[in-house]
Amino acid sequence: MDIPNLRWWGWGTLDRFFSLENRPHFWPTLRSWLGLPDELVERPPVPLESISLRPTRLDDPVLASLRRLLGDEAVRLDARARIEHACGKAYRDLVRVRAGIVPNPPDAVVYPADEGQVAALIAWAADRDIIVIPFGGGSTVLGAVEPPPDDRPAISLDLARLDRVVFLDPVSRTARIQAGATGPEVESQLNARGFTLGHFPQSFEFSTLGGWIATRAAGQTSTGYGKIEHMTQAVRLVTPVGILETCDTPATATGPGLLEFFIGSEGTCGVITEATMRIWPWPVVQDYRGFLFHRLEDGIAALRDLMQHGPRPTIARLSDSEETAGFAVMAHAHSGLRAILDRAVDRYLTWQGHSLTGGSCFLLLGYDGKPEEVRPLWRRATAICRDHRGLPLGRSVGESWKRDRFAHPYLRDTLLGVGVMVDTLETATTWSNLLNVYGAMTAAIRAAIRETGGGPGYVMTHISHIYPWGGSLYTTFLGRQVPGEEIEQWWAVKRAATEAILAAGGTLSHHHGIGRDHAPWLEQFVGPVGRATLRAVKFTLDPTGIMNPGVLLQEEQPQDE
Amino acid sequence: MDIPNLRWWGWGTLDRFFSLENRPHFWPTLRSWLGLPDELVERPPVPLESISLRPTRLDDPVLASLRRLLGDEAVRLDARARIEHACGKAYRDLVRVRAGIVPNPPDAVVYPADEGQVAALIAWAADRDIIVIPFGGGSTVLGAVEPPPDDRPAISLDLARLDRVVFLDPVSRTARIQAGATGPEVESQLNARGFTLGHFPQSFEFSTLGGWIATRAAGQTSTGYGKIEHMTQAVRLVTPVGILETCDTPATATGPGLLEFFIGSEGTCGVITEATMRIWPWPVVQDYRGFLFHRLEDGIAALRDLMQHGPRPTIARLSDSEETAGFAVMAHAHSGLRAILDRAVDRYLTWQGHSLTGGSCFLLLGYDGKPEEVRPLWRRATAICRDHRGLPLGRSVGESWKRDRFAHPYLRDTLLGVGVMVDTLETATTWSNLLNVYGAMTAAIRAAIRETGGGPGYVMTHISHIYPWGGSLYTTFLGRQVPGEEIEQWWAVKRAATEAILAAGGTLSHHHGIGRDHAPWLEQFVGPVGRATLRAVKFTLDPTGIMNPGVLLQEEQPQDE
Repeated sequence: MDIPNLRWWGWGTLDRFFSLENRPHFWPTLRSWLGLPDELVERPPVPLESISLRPTRLDDPVLASLRRLLGDEAVRLDARARIEHACGKAYRDLVRVRAGIVPNPPDAVVYPADEGQVAALIAWAADRDIIVIPFGGGSTVLGAVEPPPDDRPAISLDLARLDRVVFLDPVSRTARIQAGATGPEVESQLNARGFTLGHFPQSFEFSTLGGWIATRAAGQTSTGYGKIEHMTQAVRLVTPVGILETCDTPATATGPGLLEFFIGSEGTCGVITEATMRIWPWPVVQDYRGFLFHRLEDGIAALRDLMQHGPRPTIARLSDSEETAGFAVMAHAHSGLRAILDRAVDRYLTWQGHSLTGGSCFLLLGYDGKPEEVRPLWRRATAICRDHRGLPLGRSVGESWKRDRFAHPYLRDTLLGVGVMVDTLETATTWSNLLNVYGAMTAAIRAAIRETGGGPGYVMTHISHIYPWGGSLYTTFLGRQVPGEEIEQWWAVKRAATEAILAAGGTLSHHHGIGRDHAPWLEQFVGPVGRATLRAVKFTLDPTGIMNPGVLLQEEQPQDE
Repeated sequence: MDIPNLRWWGWGTLDRFFSLENRPHFWPTLRSWLGLPDELVERPPVPLESISLRPTRLDDPVLASLRRLLGDEAVRLDARARIEHACGKAYRDLVRVRAGIVPNPPDAVVYPADEGQVAALIAWAADRDIIVIPFGGGSTVLGAVEPPPDDRPAISLDLARLDRVVFLDPVSRTARIQAGATGPEVESQLNARGFTLGHFPQSFEFSTLGGWIATRAAGQTSTGYGKIEHMTQAVRLVTPVGILETCDTPATATGPGLLEFFIGSEGTCGVITEATMRIWPWPVVQDYRGFLFHRLEDGIAALRDLMQHGPRPTIARLSDSEETAGFAVMAHAHSGLRAILDRAVDRYLTWQGHSLTGGSCFLLLGYDGKPEEVRPLWRRATAICRDHRGLPLGRSVGESWKRDRFAHPYLRDTLLGVGVMVDTLETATTWSNLLNVYGAMTAAIRAAIRETGGGPGYVMTHISHIYPWGGSLYTTFLGRQVPGEEIEQWWAVKRAATEAILAAGGTLSHHHGIGRDHAPWLEQFVGPVGRATLRAVKFTLDPTGIMNPGVLLQEEQPQDE
C-alpha cells in the first residue's frame, strides 16, 4: 500500500540517487564556494535498527479496537513505518533522522481503505483524545506531519489507499480524485483518458493530491495550469464534527469562500478525502527552451511582458546569476565531438557578452499544447525575450531540465552526507517589489550563514510561478554545517531569511505552506483578527484539538483565550 | 456625498427611464405572453411624504454622541435618507416601498469620512449594542442591506465618502481602491491612468467596490476579466474586534484563504474599507458582435469550445429562444430605408432557417483589446461559431447591446407600475449539467407562476459568465401580479426556482449572493459543518452580533448552540 523501498533517512527510493559522475567541476567549485575542507568526511545515516523508538503509547485494548475498526493490515506499529511517518523531508528532519533522533514517532500508522474508515477513525480518535495527523507523501519541508511533543498518543493517518480517480467528466473537464493519490497515480489515471492535472511539484513522485491542497502547493507548470487553489473546484473534508462538502460548480456567490478556507488548512481542521479537480487535455508537445539574459532585471522585464501582454507561458523559471553558475558547475564533461561543440558554444556565449559563471541569468521557458498552437506562441515569446536582449539557447537545455526536474532533492542527501547545510525557501510579491524582496532576503541569508560559522555560503534564487501582478522567489542556500549545532545554525539562517522577507513585504510562503516552522510568524503575518478567525474555525471543527496540533497555530488549546 | 436625484421607489435616477416609445411590438406581445388585460391600470408609487416612518430609536444623547464622532453633516435622519437605506432593489423591496411599506427603516444613516471613522463607528455601536449595516450602492436584490425586525436600533453605514483610488502600481498592475467607490468612480480614476478594472455588472452605475467584494459579484465581462474574487488581491476589513488586512501578493500559501473567506461575507463580519484590485490596460476596442444559433444546444457547444480551446472571449451571453424573442419584441420600428433593410434582414434570416421569435438563440460575443490583437481572435471565434451553425449578425447588434447594457432595470419600474411581476435569479453549474439545471429551473418557475395565479408567465434565460468547466444561468421571469398578494406570489415562485436549482445541482447563487432571501437555503447548502464554520467566524469577529444580523445566517445569537 506504500511506495516500497523508500529512503527513510532522505529523499525518494533507495534505488535512486543524484549521480555526480562525470561532473568534474562540481566538487572543486563547491569546495571553493563554501570553504569546505579538501577532505570531506562522510557522515552516513545511522542504521534503522540502531534507532531506539519510544514504545507505542496505545495499549493492547486500544490497539485491538483500532484493528477491529480498520482491519489488521491497516494498522502498523513497526519501526520502519513509525520512522517514515515521524517527520517530513525538511533539512531539519533529515539532519535528525540521519542521526537517529526520532523523539516523537507516531504511536501507530494507519491506512484507512476509504472515506468511511477515515470518518470512523477520526470519531474513534476524538472519543479517546488521540491526536490524528493526516499524511500524504510526507514530503513537507516545514514539519507539517510531525507528531508534537504531547502527552496524548498520536496516530499518523496515511491516505495511501485512497488513490483513485473516482469520476471523470470529459465534457466539463473535471475529475473527482481521492486525496491519497500520488502525482504519478493522478497522472497515469488521467493520462489514460487523455487528460492531465498539470500539477508537477518537485515532490511530484512522492506527494499527494490531498497534501497539495492542504498546503496550497504550486507545481513547476503553475504559470500555465495554475496553483492548486486554481485547479481545485471542490473538496470533501472529514472533520471531528462531521463531513463538509463544498459547492461543486465553477464559481459561486454563496457567502464566504469555504473551499478556499480549507485549501491551506494543513490537516488542522480535518482530513481532505477527495476533491473535484479541473483537468486539461494532455498536451501533445511540451516545448521547453532556454534563454540567457545579461542581467536579472532584463529577465524579470521579459517575464513581466510575457504575463502582462502574453503569450502566457506554461512554465517560466528565471535563475539569478548564482543559480545559473550552479547549473553550469553541475554540467557533464563531454569528450570527442561533443567536447568540441561545448567549447564552440562557450566561445559563442563569450562573444555575445555572456558568461554562465560570471553574471548571466538563465531562463527556462516552456509552452504546452498542440504543435500548431505552440509555434506562434514561441514566435511572440522569442521576440519578447530578444526585446530584453535574451539570447535563445534552444530546446536541448529544456530537455535536459526536464530529465532532472524531480531529481535535485536526491542531491541534498549527498550533500548532507558530507557536512553541507542545504535548504530551500520561497516567497512571492508584486513585480514592483520583487527585486527589493530578493535583495533583502539574499543579503540576510548570506549574512546569517557567515555569522553562524557556516563559511562564505552560497545563495541562489529563481523566479517562477509568475502572474500578471508578480511572481515567486525560490531560494536555495548552502553553507558548511557546524557539527553538533546543525539545527540551531539552520534555524538562525531560516529566521533571518523569514524576517527579511516579511519586512520587505513578501508573503510568508507562496507554496510550501506553514507547518510547524512558519507557525511562529503566521500569527504575526495574519494579525490578531486573522489569528482569531483561524482559531475559531479550528476549534469549532476540532473542539478537542486532536487534528494535527501545533501546525499552523502554535497554541493547541482553545481554552487559552 | 450621495448620488443626487435617486429614484427611492425604483432603479437609478429620476431623470432616466427605459423608453418604450417607438417599440410597437412591446405591449401587444407582453399582453399576449402574460395574459394581461387590455387596459393596464397604472399603479404609481405613493408620494414620499405620505410614508409614515417609525421615529428614530436613537435618543438625543446618543445622537449627540454620534454627531460628535462623525460630524453633524455625516449623520442623517431625514425620511428620504432613511427610506433610501431601508431596503435594496429587489422586486420584493420595490413592491413594498412603492406601496409605502417601510417597516424597518434604519434609525440613522451615517457617512464616515475614512477608515478611521468606520472603525470608530463600529466600536461606538458595539459599545451600545446598535446594529450596523454596511451600505454601498444599495443595489442588492436579496435583502442584504435591510435592517432586521429587532429591538436594537440599526444604523446604515453608507461608504459613499470612501470613493478614491488611493494608490496605483502600473508596474504590478494593481490599485488600492476605497470600498465606497461606485463603478463610474472606480473606472474614471483608473481610466485617467490608462487602466480599467473590467467589472461592469448591470448595477455598475450605482453599486460599489465594497458591495461587489462583499457579495462575490460578477460583471458582464467576467468571462474575460474574471469574477470579483479573481480581481481582488487583498482586502482591509474593519470588524468589531479589530482590523484585518490580508496578504497583498499575487498568491500565497499562508494557511487557509482568509481573503477568500471575507469575499462574500456580506457585511456580517465587518466592513470592507479598501481593497487591492488587479487592473488591466484600458482596451482600445471593445468589439462586440451577434450570432444566431438554431438551437440552444448548438450555442452552448460553441461557448464550451471557446472556453476550452480558445480564444476566451471577454463577454459571452447566449440567450435561449425565449430571451431572443424578448429582445426581438423590444426592437425599435424603423421607417424609410431602415425599414426596407429590416425587412431584408428578416427575409435573410428566414432563408437561413432562423426566426427571432420562433426558436433561434442569440449570442452576444465580444473581445476587448488592441485592434491587432482582437482581429485574429475574431477569425478563430467566428470559425468556432460557424462550426456549430452560428450565423454572424455583425457588430451593430453588439453596439446596440452596449447602449442598453445598464438600462434594463429601469424597465422593471415601468412593469411594476402596471401590475407585472418581474424578477431575475441566477445560478451556475458544470457544462455537463447545464441543460439539466436549465430545464428543471425553468419548468419549476413556469409551473409556479401558473399555480400562484400569475397567468401563463414568461421565463427567459441566458448563459453568461462562462468558464472552461461550466457557466452561469441568468433567468428573468414575468407574470401577472396577484393584487394584495404580490410578495407571497413572488416568494412561491422564488422558492420553487431555488429548490429546483438545488435539486438539480446548481449553486444557490453565482453572483447575486445570499442576503436575507437565500439565507434559509444557505445552511442546507453548506451543511452543518459549513454552517458551524460560518457561525464560528461571524461570532468571533462580531461577538454581539451587531454586523448585518440575519444576512447569510438566519439566526442572530451565538447562544443558540
